Amino acid sequence: MTYTPATGEAAIRQLLGDRVRAVTTKDVDAVAAQYDADAVMYDLAPPLQTRGVDRDAIRAWFDSYAGPIRCDTAQERVFVDGGVAFVHYLYRIRGTQTSGNEVDMWVRATLGLRRQGDAWKIIHSHDSEPFDMKTFQALFDLQP
Amino acid sequence: MTYTPATGEAAIRQLLGDRVRAVTTKDVDAVAAQYDADAVMYDLAPPLQTRGVDRDAIRAWFDSYAGPIRCDTAQERVFVDGGVAFVHYLYRIRGTQTSGNEVDMWVRATLGLRRQGDAWKIIHSHDSEPFDMKTFQALFDLQP
Repeated sequence: MTYTPATGEAAIRQLLGDRVRAVTTKDVDAVAAQYDADAVMYDLAPPLQTRGVDRDAIRAWFDSYAGPIRCDTAQERVFVDGGVAFVHYLYRIRGTQTSGNEVDMWVRATLGLRRQGDAWKIIHSHDSEPFDMKTFQALFDLQP
Repeated sequence: MTYTPATGEAAIRQLLGDRVRAVTTKDVDAVAAQYDADAVMYDLAPPLQTRGVDRDAIRAWFDSYAGPIRCDTAQERVFVDGGVAFVHYLYRIRGTQTSGNEVDMWVRATLGLRRQGDAWKIIHSHDSEPFDMKTFQALFDLQP
């Protein structure tokens, strides 16, 4: 199989679809399997960065929701050439937390990927919310 | 000139160095010139995203500092193949705002780039701070 930019883009879009499905089905292994062992993550929660997949953190996130997690993506753009790609997109998380809190928030996401053989792996992920410049509160009610 | 991954990586590191220099010298044109016309930005401040460089916003940011802005980067990693690249890094901003507020904060950053001829342009940038999961306050005092 010869990789072309078109093949690469299809593979990245497939990976993104699989990622969303893994979240909605709370499949820790499927989420973790997409990461390179050397991945560096910038997440919503501190610290500034973590290295390598933390299955316990993924499980804790899933477990914080009493029922299912809904996840939808929007406005994704994929850039790929040879063995390097990145994608940025917005995603919406909806669900009820075990605390009773109803979550409905849009998050910005960027994934950096590299190809190893036929498999693309996430080598970097960056999730964030903007914050209010006066109160420094993260803003969860923004719409795309 | 034939681009190889090594050439590309050197070009991206040069661009990152130029970007830092443009911030410390408050050079709006130099910052703006690095962006593709079609760039999508995820910034610290709302909204979720903006498209295309906003020189007024860059100038307003520079003007919010009474004196110079110090900027240092750390732990950058560059991934490049052909005409696509991304880099992620931490940067530290230090300075005194016109309000008298002393700023000293680390920020996470991801840049997505594409090459047009010999020139690399930023087609996507993502800057963020993590936030406290209980108070939802952006966290400015984290160290790498």
